[in-house]
Amino acid sequence: MKETWSFLDTFEPNFRPLVVIELAKGTKKETIEWFTKRIVDKKANGGAQLLIKPLVTENGDETIYLIGASHLRLLLGAETVGLVKECNDNSMRSFTYSSRKTFKDFADDNHNFLTMSECQYIIKHELENLRARDEKMIPGYPQAKLYPGKSIVRRLLTNGILVQIFPLHDREELKKLRHTWYGRVKIGYQPLDEIRSYFGETIALYFGFLEYFTFALIPMAVIGIPYYVFAWEDYDKYVMFATFNLLWSTVILEVWKRICAVMTYRWGTLLMKRQFEEPRPGFHGALGINPVTGREEPVYSSIKRQLRIYLVSVPFVCLCLYFSLYVMMIYFDLEQWALDYHEENKSTFSSLMLYVPSIIYAVVIEIMNRIYRYAAEFLTSWENHRLESSYQNHLILKVLVFNFLNCFASLFYIAFVLFDMKLLRQSLATLLITSQILNQFAESLLPYWLQKRHVKKMKKHTHSLKTETDLSLVEQVNLEKEMGTYFGTFDDYLELFLQFGYVSLFSCVYPLAAVFAVLNNVTEIYSDALKMCRVYKRPFAEPTANIGVWQLAFETMSVISVVTNCILIGMSPQVNALFPDSKMDLVLTVALVEHLLLAIKFVMAFVIPDKPREIQIKLAKLEFESLEALKQQKRGGS
Amino acid sequence: MKETWSFLDTFEPNFRPLVVIELAKGTKKETIEWFTKRIVDKKANGGAQLLIKPLVTENGDETIYLIGASHLRLLLGAETVGLVKECNDNSMRSFTYSSRKTFKDFADDNHNFLTMSECQYIIKHELENLRARDEKMIPGYPQAKLYPGKSIVRRLLTNGILVQIFPLHDREELKKLRHTWYGRVKIGYQPLDEIRSYFGETIALYFGFLEYFTFALIPMAVIGIPYYVFAWEDYDKYVMFATFNLLWSTVILEVWKRICAVMTYRWGTLLMKRQFEEPRPGFHGALGINPVTGREEPVYSSIKRQLRIYLVSVPFVCLCLYFSLYVMMIYFDLEQWALDYHEENKSTFSSLMLYVPSIIYAVVIEIMNRIYRYAAEFLTSWENHRLESSYQNHLILKVLVFNFLNCFASLFYIAFVLFDMKLLRQSLATLLITSQILNQFAESLLPYWLQKRHVKKMKKHTHSLKTETDLSLVEQVNLEKEMGTYFGTFDDYLELFLQFGYVSLFSCVYPLAAVFAVLNNVTEIYSDALKMCRVYKRPFAEPTANIGVWQLAFETMSVISVVTNCILIGMSPQVNALFPDSKMDLVLTVALVEHLLLAIKFVMAFVIPDKPREIQIKLAKLEFESLEALKQQKRGGS
Repeated sequence: MKETWSFLDTFEPNFRPLVVIELAKGTKKETIEWFTKRIVDKKANGGAQLLIKPLVTENGDETIYLIGASHLRLLLGAETVGLVKECNDNSMRSFTYSSRKTFKDFADDNHNFLTMSECQYIIKHELENLRARDEKMIPGYPQAKLYPGKSIVRRLLTNGILVQIFPLHDREELKKLRHTWYGRVKIGYQPLDEIRSYFGETIALYFGFLEYFTFALIPMAVIGIPYYVFAWEDYDKYVMFATFNLLWSTVILEVWKRICAVMTYRWGTLLMKRQFEEPRPGFHGALGINPVTGREEPVYSSIKRQLRIYLVSVPFVCLCLYFSLYVMMIYFDLEQWALDYHEENKSTFSSLMLYVPSIIYAVVIEIMNRIYRYAAEFLTSWENHRLESSYQNHLILKVLVFNFLNCFASLFYIAFVLFDMKLLRQSLATLLITSQILNQFAESLLPYWLQKRHVKKMKKHTHSLKTETDLSLVEQVNLEKEMGTYFGTFDDYLELFLQFGYVSLFSCVYPLAAVFAVLNNVTEIYSDALKMCRVYKRPFAEPTANIGVWQLAFETMSVISVVTNCILIGMSPQVNALFPDSKMDLVLTVALVEHLLLAIKFVMAFVIPDKPREIQIKLAKLEFESLEALKQQKRGGS
Repeated sequence: MKETWSFLDTFEPNFRPLVVIELAKGTKKETIEWFTKRIVDKKANGGAQLLIKPLVTENGDETIYLIGASHLRLLLGAETVGLVKECNDNSMRSFTYSSRKTFKDFADDNHNFLTMSECQYIIKHELENLRARDEKMIPGYPQAKLYPGKSIVRRLLTNGILVQIFPLHDREELKKLRHTWYGRVKIGYQPLDEIRSYFGETIALYFGFLEYFTFALIPMAVIGIPYYVFAWEDYDKYVMFATFNLLWSTVILEVWKRICAVMTYRWGTLLMKRQFEEPRPGFHGALGINPVTGREEPVYSSIKRQLRIYLVSVPFVCLCLYFSLYVMMIYFDLEQWALDYHEENKSTFSSLMLYVPSIIYAVVIEIMNRIYRYAAEFLTSWENHRLESSYQNHLILKVLVFNFLNCFASLFYIAFVLFDMKLLRQSLATLLITSQILNQFAESLLPYWLQKRHVKKMKKHTHSLKTETDLSLVEQVNLEKEMGTYFGTFDDYLELFLQFGYVSLFSCVYPLAAVFAVLNNVTEIYSDALKMCRVYKRPFAEPTANIGVWQLAFETMSVISVVTNCILIGMSPQVNALFPDSKMDLVLTVALVEHLLLAIKFVMAFVIPDKPREIQIKLAKLEFESLEALKQQKRGGS
């Protein structure tokens, strides 16, 4: 091991830029010198042992640096981050430099063994784990305090010295990907493996889920169409539709887990160990010994974290939920008041006033969402989670609960307090369709248009007529650094989650919802793909084995939808007509059916295995081998 | 590895008998010769490489054999079965012979490193995995067919040639254990670690659960007593009691998982891998390659097993459940008929007739239980599960569902069809108390008395006045081979499960149930301990990491009890009086409360981690080390 590190040198003839670092204008020279030295320094001296090159722009100031690494350095980094790759015997194993020869497609001169996004992920990991040793502060910035173990990059970012870090696009690869992904009109699956190797697992998994979910909605949509066409209003058909929906939604969520396991096994992320993740960059604590690995790293008491979660975050979220409900009640009061006002006055002004409450409510909801999102991020960061995944899960859970209430509280109120099915159907349709249109516009088309305009302006500015693939490195960097930043799949999943809510919560009232959802998702795939490829900076790849807390969120939604659908069916006049004498019998029957459906759901979730047998066997085999290896090692040691 | 096996010889000066084998009278000589040769034969020749000695009894026939093994053989066997032991650095690791020096208390001359029950477990495992090679049948018994890979011992047992295999008691150890366990009157915990090292983990875990469960019931009992003493009948107190019960039962089941993890980590069974369990003795299939281990062993298509489960077993169980309900309805009809008859005639004969339906029903239930149990065992065996644990789980599930219905169906009928709360309370009390008394009598006291009489008769017969610890080996074997066989913890858990049902399902009707349960369990600990130590043959130790499917069973019961208690409270006249105008509001309120309670239960189950943090870290550390070892091994190999 040790001698391989010494092969590395900071000089490399074929420097390939992978990641861009942008420093603030006017950053002190001594800071730049210290930072670049730390980046190129040997591992043994606490450096990251990467390559760095300044990018000299036309106006001469050196604020942009390109980071690269030698092939050997990247391979050693792949071992550090625990990358799992396919071996010659088709099994998936953690890559180690010494066993490199046993891996498929490995050759010392094959620089494509690691994909570009993997190389960028490794560099990001190394940069983020560049930690302060004996520095008390960032040289040149006495107010930017450092302590042993503090991530340097994080401190530079929080102090504004570092403006951004982002990976470079590979224009050639991107063009190919765009072509197979959405460049031609075709019916077929997305090139998930290519998306994964360009954008990483998290994003590929999102597109995989979006595609799967769309296919899974098709049966609901197909069954829903005749309800609209033939205007079926029979209760028995509604009951059948709702029952099918409820069972189907359980099945699709269970089957997704299996499909997800197959995909992430192939990508190697199913085997990556969550436990040995390095602490996330924002994590702070006194330097201590990690009890699992025995390595030195910041440690933070889990009891303190629990106290922060349960004594501060949970009450805060509850308060926000209460406030949101309060605002909704005010909205309904305002609406009533506007209606009364219109009834009394019947003027143009009063008919305009009818729209005022809705507009105010929409604006207030948007403001609340933004403030809450900011507060949730602050709180979750303050909870000081050791792992990025745990941070994300807590953030998602917080935002999810609030968004759920904001989106569906008014529908619940209409359905179960006002008992107005017609209004419910109308509100549901309006909400679903407008939110879909607005989302697609605000999320992809608008940024795409802005980006296009920006490129045009840039081209006019540089008097260049080159096509995008012919851009010089300087031009490419200058173009990409101005692109927006993609903040992760959060908002995309949230959109799908809310859509799932519209489709399933009140499915028996509006069977056409699934049709709109399918139509939306088909275009969503294209607009999201466009967004990823043309609008945003390339995001860093993020290995992941599943969609995490979203799985739980979707499952919870499908449990809630059993309850709501049963109540809706119980409230329908057709079902009420079946029990003319006793409302009591009706309620009891509905409750019985609901409990039965819930029981079936849980039995199904229990009976369907989360991983296909094939994957189970492969995982068991790996576990068995690793245990045997432990025995072997002991044998050797004794 | 290889040379260590050659050290073994079938001759050993200090032969210590561990396991007894009893052959049928008149077993052919050639069979005995062949069987004993296979037992002592070298591993390389397909033998078990154990020691065997005939026990010559007074009447001269050689049907009883004692099995032992050399110290070295046992250590190698401990590695084969994957025993986990404590190391010098206090971590728990799989024992391997080559790393033996790193284990706590290991010394080449310390023959107590493995406990006697571990040695017996190893011998049982080796005997059961003595498999046919090229034999077509058991020599001397052409009808007893063999095929490659078939467990010889299993075939001998099914053909009646082998009467029984059982481990010998250690009279000295047993006396000590008895003394600390129940020999003196004291308040305190059971010596679970000593029970574990004498009887194995499964039995120790049962006693641990019994003790924990008893302690956990005490709060319920304490809160229940004033209801009886002050004859509280206020609805609000009942509601409080029921709510406390429901949340408490969730908490105790979650906390048990954590306590169980701590115990089984200490015992090493938490780390034993279920995947690498050898196939259970009854498992059959064509010889193939296990995809996980790569070793040759019988394989059986999992699809075939699924088909057998879903197409045969599940419909059969459903049919039985239907039949059982049908019988219950006949019983209620008969009861009604007897009541009517008594009303009309009012004679001594007619008042006697009142008891007839109950007696008939009790007898029929008992018969149905027995037939069903037999059928369930046959079916589960026919499903051909690879692992003993999987066989047990399927068997338990089958029997559980049927027993649940048999025990509680009549109570459900009384509560929710007849709406007779007084009768419900009366039936509940009668059922609970009589079943407890009958169980303790039939389970422990009766066998104990029979056993005592048997020992007396034997002593009279042999004119011996020795105390039990002074018995000669021949006397001990003759005594023990006539003792009853303990068929596992199944019935003990079932009793606890049904008790939990009586306590929780209708807790708001009869708060005193917990008091009776606590009283019963305190004596149950003593009677079960007596049963284990004095009535039955010593059972083979069975490593286990948790109470398996029973955890699920208890959790399901606690979910069902939320539903039943909510309905009962809703039906109580006090609560009804609160909603004088609208029964509808009552039902809706009850349904709302029920859903809230269920939601709280699930959130609690989700929030409380299954393993204490300390254990989580230890497990993660071991996993990390085994992965590092795999890397190391690869590095060495490349």
